[in-house]
Amino acid sequence: MASDSTKSMREQVTDYILSLQDEIVTALEKLDPSAPPFKRDSWTRAQGGQGQSCVFAVPPPSSQSTQKAHDQDHEKEQEKEKETVLEKAGVNISIVHGTLPPSAIKQMRADHESIPYDPERDTSLPFFAAGISLVIHPRNPSAPTVHANYRYFEVTAAPPPPPEVHPQPPTDDQTNSASAEEGGDKDKAAEPNVLAWWFGGGSDLTPSYLFEEDAKHFHGTLKSACDAHGEALFPAFKKWCDEYFFIPHRGESRGIGGIFFDDLTAEPHKRLPSSPSLSSKRPESPSEIFAFVRSCGDAFLPSYLPLLQRRMSAPSDEHKRRWQLLRRGRYVEFNLVYDRGTKFGLMTPGARIESILMSLPETARWEYMSDIGGDAESEEGRLIEVLKNPRSWV
Amino acid sequence: MASDSTKSMREQVTDYILSLQDEIVTALEKLDPSAPPFKRDSWTRAQGGQGQSCVFAVPPPSSQSTQKAHDQDHEKEQEKEKETVLEKAGVNISIVHGTLPPSAIKQMRADHESIPYDPERDTSLPFFAAGISLVIHPRNPSAPTVHANYRYFEVTAAPPPPPEVHPQPPTDDQTNSASAEEGGDKDKAAEPNVLAWWFGGGSDLTPSYLFEEDAKHFHGTLKSACDAHGEALFPAFKKWCDEYFFIPHRGESRGIGGIFFDDLTAEPHKRLPSSPSLSSKRPESPSEIFAFVRSCGDAFLPSYLPLLQRRMSAPSDEHKRRWQLLRRGRYVEFNLVYDRGTKFGLMTPGARIESILMSLPETARWEYMSDIGGDAESEEGRLIEVLKNPRSWV
Repeated sequence: MASDSTKSMREQVTDYILSLQDEIVTALEKLDPSAPPFKRDSWTRAQGGQGQSCVFAVPPPSSQSTQKAHDQDHEKEQEKEKETVLEKAGVNISIVHGTLPPSAIKQMRADHESIPYDPERDTSLPFFAAGISLVIHPRNPSAPTVHANYRYFEVTAAPPPPPEVHPQPPTDDQTNSASAEEGGDKDKAAEPNVLAWWFGGGSDLTPSYLFEEDAKHFHGTLKSACDAHGEALFPAFKKWCDEYFFIPHRGESRGIGGIFFDDLTAEPHKRLPSSPSLSSKRPESPSEIFAFVRSCGDAFLPSYLPLLQRRMSAPSDEHKRRWQLLRRGRYVEFNLVYDRGTKFGLMTPGARIESILMSLPETARWEYMSDIGGDAESEEGRLIEVLKNPRSWV
Repeated sequence: MASDSTKSMREQVTDYILSLQDEIVTALEKLDPSAPPFKRDSWTRAQGGQGQSCVFAVPPPSSQSTQKAHDQDHEKEQEKEKETVLEKAGVNISIVHGTLPPSAIKQMRADHESIPYDPERDTSLPFFAAGISLVIHPRNPSAPTVHANYRYFEVTAAPPPPPEVHPQPPTDDQTNSASAEEGGDKDKAAEPNVLAWWFGGGSDLTPSYLFEEDAKHFHGTLKSACDAHGEALFPAFKKWCDEYFFIPHRGESRGIGGIFFDDLTAEPHKRLPSSPSLSSKRPESPSEIFAFVRSCGDAFLPSYLPLLQRRMSAPSDEHKRRWQLLRRGRYVEFNLVYDRGTKFGLMTPGARIESILMSLPETARWEYMSDIGGDAESEEGRLIEVLKNPRSWV
């Protein structure tokens, strides 16, 4: 769990999300060896930064293969044969930097008072952000959709004026305050002066059909990952997850939750108890918080893969598929109307829209006054009940 | 074209949208006699008002009919037989009233200075709104989706205090200023005192495949409907439509436009020329503006039905269907992320979500970095070109 103290937090986070992406994509490809591999797609951002999207999608049948499928006696069988475990999935990382406009700085100060803000001067500040974001939509209606995202954010001081005007050596003040905790690289003149830093992330499950043992396994795995770093974390972040992934106009949650957190830094956190006691123990230093985030990230595959393996070949029919697509419609509603990350991305000039909207399912469905899900005794109604009244699973 | 001067504008608009709804639904049902009829669904709003949704949807095949379809030799034929012209459609009217909170009043004052606003006192005001809203998604990928909406809005003075406290007869000031133009009902003590009123609306076409003659017919019919009421209307409202139905994150329009207008009242309008000349003639009185709106509403069927008839049986294949569903994904993106009416509806407590989201297609599709539409020489690329560079069609 020890982090590499010779590297800055930026470098450590970058290393970690690169290896986590590879681990997750490899595991998903192993699960379905006959499916086409994920498409690896590297990109660079004109304003600074780069990323790698790993996306799974099955190309729709060409006209030729449609012709073949007209051999009617075997159509259903062929359909089965070519069915992949996943329908659409993306495991993306991005490592970007740029300049925050004064309006963004003003907003961020609400949670990060260490960012200086002078209302008299419209100052812009450099930022660095690195994260992994994934969404997996399996094909089988009994197999749940899952989402996870872990990210690190830094706001740094504006670079000193060009040396030919005001030559000045880096001072102690300009030392990266995050990496200082790791042992420091005070000799590196190029190290930026970090004014504020924080981690955010989470993971949540969106089933179309409720299997209580799946919900318990998913939540239980995340709870164990959290508890090792402080018992206050899971209850606080589970509640936050239920609040965040709520669709007000439907009066229901997007899914059955998991964990969600943001703005986690060395300062006291409004969602975590501040009095020092055993039950309020929490990670505080950069290395402690990064260790907690790695625990959560490492818990992704153990929390989800067993569910996928258990459900990917479950019996299905048109009714179940129809319900799954209706639920995917709700997923689209949440992501386009409420998700902060998506909205922020769509409003950002030069953002990579294809990566942002990768989270949308391949197909979604909307019915006016649908007759499915209304009967509380039906399998579909049982899910709705839990979406309207989030439950404690562990 | 003369309006019934013995009725208030509220009543006239209500009568009109009721008859227009009936006319449009009847015409669509006639076009496809073997399809199930539209589902008429009346509702009342707890906070005041009522409406009628007329919705077309084909119930998904039950398990039984699925069984039958397994008679493989005839499957394709049966598929053809049961295919309806429309895939999903809604023609809805609503006539509602209630109370505008101070925040809404403050916003509306930007375009309607006649609404009094006292920053010292948080005053709420009564409103009345009546409108027709329709979206038609045909099944055939060559047949375009269409949207239209016409509405009337009134803000009235707060009712006088209960008579037992301050008995006072209605004064001239409390006469409905909109209906006063019609000849007035000054004797009706119950007539509300209209502080501000306006009309809004428009109609726009969203094809998946571009047929220039369809675009010309649609725009030409709307232009004729507008031109009879002032030559400045169509150019101004065509431009407004292109601006409104734009999807910034895609850099393209939702469709190929039509007309869009709002806040049309007796006052000068920021989108219309104010100097009096032949080319700047515009409807000004309530009856003139209502006549213009009726012209547009009456033009709906002539603008669209011929296109639907022409394209509803066009040859189709899986490629065309896939492209149609991708375009429907864009339709969902616009409606959920940008459409003011949808956003306002989703945020309104007690709003009828099923009617608001009736505009969404039955099915939509998202592909990461889709390979369709990128080739400018392809049929799909030709549409994209027009969506990125709106054209003048008449």
